[in-house]
Amino acid sequence: MEISINDFKTIEGGVTAPSGFKASGVASGIKKNGEADIALILSECKASAAGVFTLNKVKGHSLELSVENLHDGSAQCVFINSGNANACLGPKGKEDAIAITEKCASLAGISPEDVLTGSTGVIGHPLPMEKVLNGITDAYYKLDKNGGINAAKAIMTTDSYPKEAAVSYSSNGGTVTIGGMAKGSGMINPNMATMIAVITTDAVISPELLKEILQNAVDKSFNRISIDGETSVCDKILVLANGMSGLPAIQNNSAEAFKFEKALEIVSIRLAKMLASDGEGATKLIEINIRNAATPEDAHAAGKSIANSPLVKTAFFGEDANWGRILTAVGYSGAEFNPSETSISIGTMVLFDKGVAIPFDEHQAKEVLSKHEISIEVNFGSGRFDTTIWTCDFSREYIDINANYRT
Amino acid sequence: MEISINDFKTIEGGVTAPSGFKASGVASGIKKNGEADIALILSECKASAAGVFTLNKVKGHSLELSVENLHDGSAQCVFINSGNANACLGPKGKEDAIAITEKCASLAGISPEDVLTGSTGVIGHPLPMEKVLNGITDAYYKLDKNGGINAAKAIMTTDSYPKEAAVSYSSNGGTVTIGGMAKGSGMINPNMATMIAVITTDAVISPELLKEILQNAVDKSFNRISIDGETSVCDKILVLANGMSGLPAIQNNSAEAFKFEKALEIVSIRLAKMLASDGEGATKLIEINIRNAATPEDAHAAGKSIANSPLVKTAFFGEDANWGRILTAVGYSGAEFNPSETSISIGTMVLFDKGVAIPFDEHQAKEVLSKHEISIEVNFGSGRFDTTIWTCDFSREYIDINANYRT
Repeated sequence: MEISINDFKTIEGGVTAPSGFKASGVASGIKKNGEADIALILSECKASAAGVFTLNKVKGHSLELSVENLHDGSAQCVFINSGNANACLGPKGKEDAIAITEKCASLAGISPEDVLTGSTGVIGHPLPMEKVLNGITDAYYKLDKNGGINAAKAIMTTDSYPKEAAVSYSSNGGTVTIGGMAKGSGMINPNMATMIAVITTDAVISPELLKEILQNAVDKSFNRISIDGETSVCDKILVLANGMSGLPAIQNNSAEAFKFEKALEIVSIRLAKMLASDGEGATKLIEINIRNAATPEDAHAAGKSIANSPLVKTAFFGEDANWGRILTAVGYSGAEFNPSETSISIGTMVLFDKGVAIPFDEHQAKEVLSKHEISIEVNFGSGRFDTTIWTCDFSREYIDINANYRT
Repeated sequence: MEISINDFKTIEGGVTAPSGFKASGVASGIKKNGEADIALILSECKASAAGVFTLNKVKGHSLELSVENLHDGSAQCVFINSGNANACLGPKGKEDAIAITEKCASLAGISPEDVLTGSTGVIGHPLPMEKVLNGITDAYYKLDKNGGINAAKAIMTTDSYPKEAAVSYSSNGGTVTIGGMAKGSGMINPNMATMIAVITTDAVISPELLKEILQNAVDKSFNRISIDGETSVCDKILVLANGMSGLPAIQNNSAEAFKFEKALEIVSIRLAKMLASDGEGATKLIEINIRNAATPEDAHAAGKSIANSPLVKTAFFGEDANWGRILTAVGYSGAEFNPSETSISIGTMVLFDKGVAIPFDEHQAKEVLSKHEISIEVNFGSGRFDTTIWTCDFSREYIDINANYRT
């Protein structure tokens, strides 16, 4: 079956773009600066639900409870707070997460097991539970079918803007809509983990197929970005499919499944690129294209090594065409390749051709490197596997943000 | 056999501290700012020689020639230039490296195969060979038995000070001396590679045993430091043992071999800690102690992950007791451990005790963190393997240095 990018329509909004979802964002007082810190999303009916979770061995308490509550493949409500990670607190952390699900459930008249919880922020400080429980009540009464943007704002930590994306497509004479929101913006590294995203859809789909398709979309989007090589203990991506499109259920390996996967991938890539572009202190979005690697693993390792290299990232901040650092990062990535068959270009300028440095015009290089979006290519000249990784540069502001985050 | 640290005497100087070595450092014009850029070391007689080289798949041409010239386990002369890496230049890079060995050899009246070459600096620019060859002549005539410090200065790139260390110890009624010099100070990462160091000794030892002992010493020193997780294409450690102590040859598994190894380890650790402490833009030296890991590999992975974490390093720059980032870095390191048996302390302050955050006095923490040398401990509470890794913090100056290095 042919799927064209033209089959998918970019639409406004985020998690409340699909039918049957309301959301809200409120300031409960967790953040001392009075900014919004609790996001709530509620579906009109129980939804198929799936998630991908951090690979960090240490896991936040809110995240662990979400993993448990997803075991039956369904959920109806998502709670996320920013400003506090609810992590590394012993039994109290788990108790607080349970109290949160109970509060949401009692307001919405649903089971606590159908509430998914997430927390992001500083580690090791107990949640101020009175503020949180009052905030949930506030958020519940502010739920709105246009409230997606408020939820997207409430999950922000060091993000500089709220991140939303949505697409719709025609399906069996009806319309399927997928919307999402995400927050970054440090601790972002290929291996999922590393951020929080919530995606909603009105598609009709089983939890099993939803999970499989989510993993595929994540592998092509959130697992291909890196801000600083860090993998946090709290971060996750959740998807809820509430079936409110009223269309026939999406079957495994069907044309509709491929279309749904493509749409989920589009939303995920758009959110992922926003995360990379809004990395802490970032001034540039860098697209790293690895071409003709011997295996997909080699391509991924090479791309990730470039994306995580402080020397590459500071060179881009300095708008310096330092391809030697790119080659160095590939050289220690563990990827198999032959340097004398390898070429490197930045934008359309070839700087290293089959093992030999190519003299280039520094003025032209400055012009390419002064742009906000920069694309680089490393071509291994043999194999047949390609990948794309997105990252950002490394600026003075990253240091300033992270030297003073906790206190 | 009991070896006491008191058996070893710290002495002044570096590569010219042992008998029979002369050295020099001159400005040949490779560096545009007129600073010294060629270091030469010459032994009075042919020496046993060994090296440990970068694991980067891409290797500089000067380094590759050193690897070749070490095949017979002997050398008499070491040439190192800073300011240009002589890397990624195709056949010309190799030709230039050979021309350098020929020039050194003809001046010294030795074989070109007994000259080891090293280059450090920017990648992809041909060496200005006329300047280099004239510089070698200049350096040869300036060789001096007190010239170690000049060689140490000439190998510096972004180092803020020259790095030398030397010890001597009694052996069979005589004295063995070991001296060394090293340069950093970005691209430093456990896995050797990552820097240039040259160590000289007047011990009498076979190339095979020298190589084995060097690898042991490197594993406990240069492989345990990290500035930024980068592994360069040019970096190496070389050791020359010229036998001028006139003592009996050191035999494998003998008391003298253990003593020699300990002395080489002391010199290597001192140089390695200087490299970590003088990391680009560093304001602090951080000693990371991993205790009670299940395997040596787990201990190393955990320590390295902390040492390379931009979030940990920026927190130390900000003097912030952010133990959550330390735990996070351990969590994604791949090390096997149980978070609920794990404890973390900074200095003498326990911040995380068997899985639970411990409230602490922020004033006391600031006091510990405002010091230049800071020690942290992660205790896994089970296994029996320990390791120590040294790193530095991550400052605004690191960004400034590396955003503007090449141009």
